Amino acid sequence: MRAELIMVGTELLLGEIVDTNATFLARNLADLGIDVFFKSTVGDNRERVGGVLTEALKRSDVVIMSGGLGPTDDDLTREVVSEVMDAPLVEDQEVLRDLEEWFAERYGNADMPRHNRKQALFPSGSRVISNPVGTAPGFWVEREGKVVVALPGVSQELKAMFSESVLPALMQKGTGEMLVTRNLHFAGIGESNLEEILEDLLREQSNPTLALYASGGTVRVRMAVKAETREAGLALMAPVETEIRRRTKEYLYGVDGQSLEQVVAEILLQKKLTLALAESCTGGLIGHRLTNVSGSSGFLDRGYVVYSNQAKMDELGVKQSTLEEFGAVSEQTAREMAEGARRAAKTDLGLAVTGIAGPTGGTDSKPVGLVYISLASNGDTIVQRHLWKGTREQIKNRAALMALRLLWQANE
Amino acid sequence: MRAELIMVGTELLLGEIVDTNATFLARNLADLGIDVFFKSTVGDNRERVGGVLTEALKRSDVVIMSGGLGPTDDDLTREVVSEVMDAPLVEDQEVLRDLEEWFAERYGNADMPRHNRKQALFPSGSRVISNPVGTAPGFWVEREGKVVVALPGVSQELKAMFSESVLPALMQKGTGEMLVTRNLHFAGIGESNLEEILEDLLREQSNPTLALYASGGTVRVRMAVKAETREAGLALMAPVETEIRRRTKEYLYGVDGQSLEQVVAEILLQKKLTLALAESCTGGLIGHRLTNVSGSSGFLDRGYVVYSNQAKMDELGVKQSTLEEFGAVSEQTAREMAEGARRAAKTDLGLAVTGIAGPTGGTDSKPVGLVYISLASNGDTIVQRHLWKGTREQIKNRAALMALRLLWQANE
Repeated sequence: MRAELIMVGTELLLGEIVDTNATFLARNLADLGIDVFFKSTVGDNRERVGGVLTEALKRSDVVIMSGGLGPTDDDLTREVVSEVMDAPLVEDQEVLRDLEEWFAERYGNADMPRHNRKQALFPSGSRVISNPVGTAPGFWVEREGKVVVALPGVSQELKAMFSESVLPALMQKGTGEMLVTRNLHFAGIGESNLEEILEDLLREQSNPTLALYASGGTVRVRMAVKAETREAGLALMAPVETEIRRRTKEYLYGVDGQSLEQVVAEILLQKKLTLALAESCTGGLIGHRLTNVSGSSGFLDRGYVVYSNQAKMDELGVKQSTLEEFGAVSEQTAREMAEGARRAAKTDLGLAVTGIAGPTGGTDSKPVGLVYISLASNGDTIVQRHLWKGTREQIKNRAALMALRLLWQANE
Repeated sequence: MRAELIMVGTELLLGEIVDTNATFLARNLADLGIDVFFKSTVGDNRERVGGVLTEALKRSDVVIMSGGLGPTDDDLTREVVSEVMDAPLVEDQEVLRDLEEWFAERYGNADMPRHNRKQALFPSGSRVISNPVGTAPGFWVEREGKVVVALPGVSQELKAMFSESVLPALMQKGTGEMLVTRNLHFAGIGESNLEEILEDLLREQSNPTLALYASGGTVRVRMAVKAETREAGLALMAPVETEIRRRTKEYLYGVDGQSLEQVVAEILLQKKLTLALAESCTGGLIGHRLTNVSGSSGFLDRGYVVYSNQAKMDELGVKQSTLEEFGAVSEQTAREMAEGARRAAKTDLGLAVTGIAGPTGGTDSKPVGLVYISLASNGDTIVQRHLWKGTREQIKNRAALMALRLLWQANE
């Protein structure tokens, strides 16, 4: 089965917004094992939308359209599909009643704007796709083996309607096989190193197939397999995952979209460990990331953003002699920061970061990108030295990521 | 002049990546006043790319292609353009020499992989577009008044080559007029309120035109005008900007991409004011945003992420009786936090945030989204109460934004 996408909307051609609907639809179709060979974007113009749809129906079995289903004169999708599929528009009484009720509830009277009546019109023979989130229903219309699916352009509506109605219908139409995927997330190892460790699997493994994706310092391995059911797919992937885990244990922190901070939060909550932060170059980013996890107040007691040397001494008891002898960015200062945060806050753990995020402030012996990360616990204190290239924000992000990784590794 | 875009690459149809090249090209063409009516995405397949290009040349004057210029067998753009434009591929000796030199420099010998030789081939009559960042040059080829521009898919290369070579050539081809834009950034006012204040301008103003865009709690007003030169355009916009500023002074914090933290940093550095933060629900986000500005160590002394009540008392001297009587999320606690941070750090300013980011922890009297922001200075202490709807991250982001806005307003 070949599918293609038509995104309708002049705003999409102005470059003012990024089209996430297309990405969502493409990924979901790929997961279903449906090939997408073309994607077109076209403005709100009857002739041009019609031309693109005619072309699309020549080369694909299923055309999914997004946008142009609203009540205004600019919304032309239903008219165009009606014309191209030779299916006159028919008013759906049930949808009309729903629309009137929606307006009555919302505005306390039954006088729906005349324009909105248009949203109850569908090409004859359509199956209406109900919209659980907004007023614009979509439709699915079939002619001579070709399917056109029309969905609204509002992301939230499109995603809900696709997942609830279109996806099951497409699966039924297809081979009955589905694509089952599982993602493994890695931190602390580069894409090429991971590629080397998994080289034979990446090359020889075909069911599931494996692919690597790197972003923001983490790497993701995506396993994908075609199977009759999700369970059957997962069963095919299990031995491959076991082998990957055997080779990469210290880097594999989560699966299927889990963030490192979520994993860390679960571990600390489960082990009933409390944490204090001492951040210099990350400026609060580690605290921000950890507090994005709901329930983080259960383990995060406090944090110190110690930007000045005075703050490092006042809050964490870093010794003036340490700062003078070794500098604020040093193994010794990082260690005293972590131990000082743990002591001052009376927590089980103290996590500290000090470094030079740049672009200024670097020297020959202490270049931009030099970062020390330290974790103090009951037993001992670990200090790690890193040197990264990148912009100020990249170095901050990398430092926060590796600090969270240290926290994860030391406690899992 | 009508342009359209063809994005080549199978990976773009899998939904694994978001196509920012298309957004970049569309926005730049819109800024030049060139209409973009179509955008197509197609996989690395000779026949399909050829079909899309043939169709595109029927309906547009300029076709800009991205991707498919690399050295592998999958890279088909040069072959397809050659075929469709009936312009046989010719080897460019200068480009070939450059490629060989690039490889010799990089790998210490002159044996360039045979595949890369392909990157010196161009449809006859092409103008080569040099690539300042990578190995793949692009080209511009014209036949019977139709132009095809081919650029590599690597974002960094595409952007550099478009800006340096394609944009000036397109301007020359066009009317000679350029689109000059200027963006005004607002915080602390909603899109619809701002729309109301500027209603007559938005309606009647045609040169420049005005448009509103909201995102993440800020609003942007984009002024755009066609003019012969940038200076002439700016002159046409100046009186409109003066009128907008007169009406919206307390909300307009920056222009042309300035962030609120940059504006705050400039003011505090210039006034030589030092700052301490006391963050509860934002968890370090305000510190993170301020330290994204290079030079922030010149005013940011330290921050306290006081997640627990004990931390609020220990670090900031918030009174136990205040926490018991009014609660951690209250006007009184916010005030004591701001004053306590300023006192503990001996800074000129103390900025505090306390609130309920959710999704749990809300009550009837203190619902999720309730946030107090306080700023303590030499003279007095300001406290603001806010109530927002949204996810945990949205509420944190909004709270950080409004805290920065208070800092800006109180000191500008």
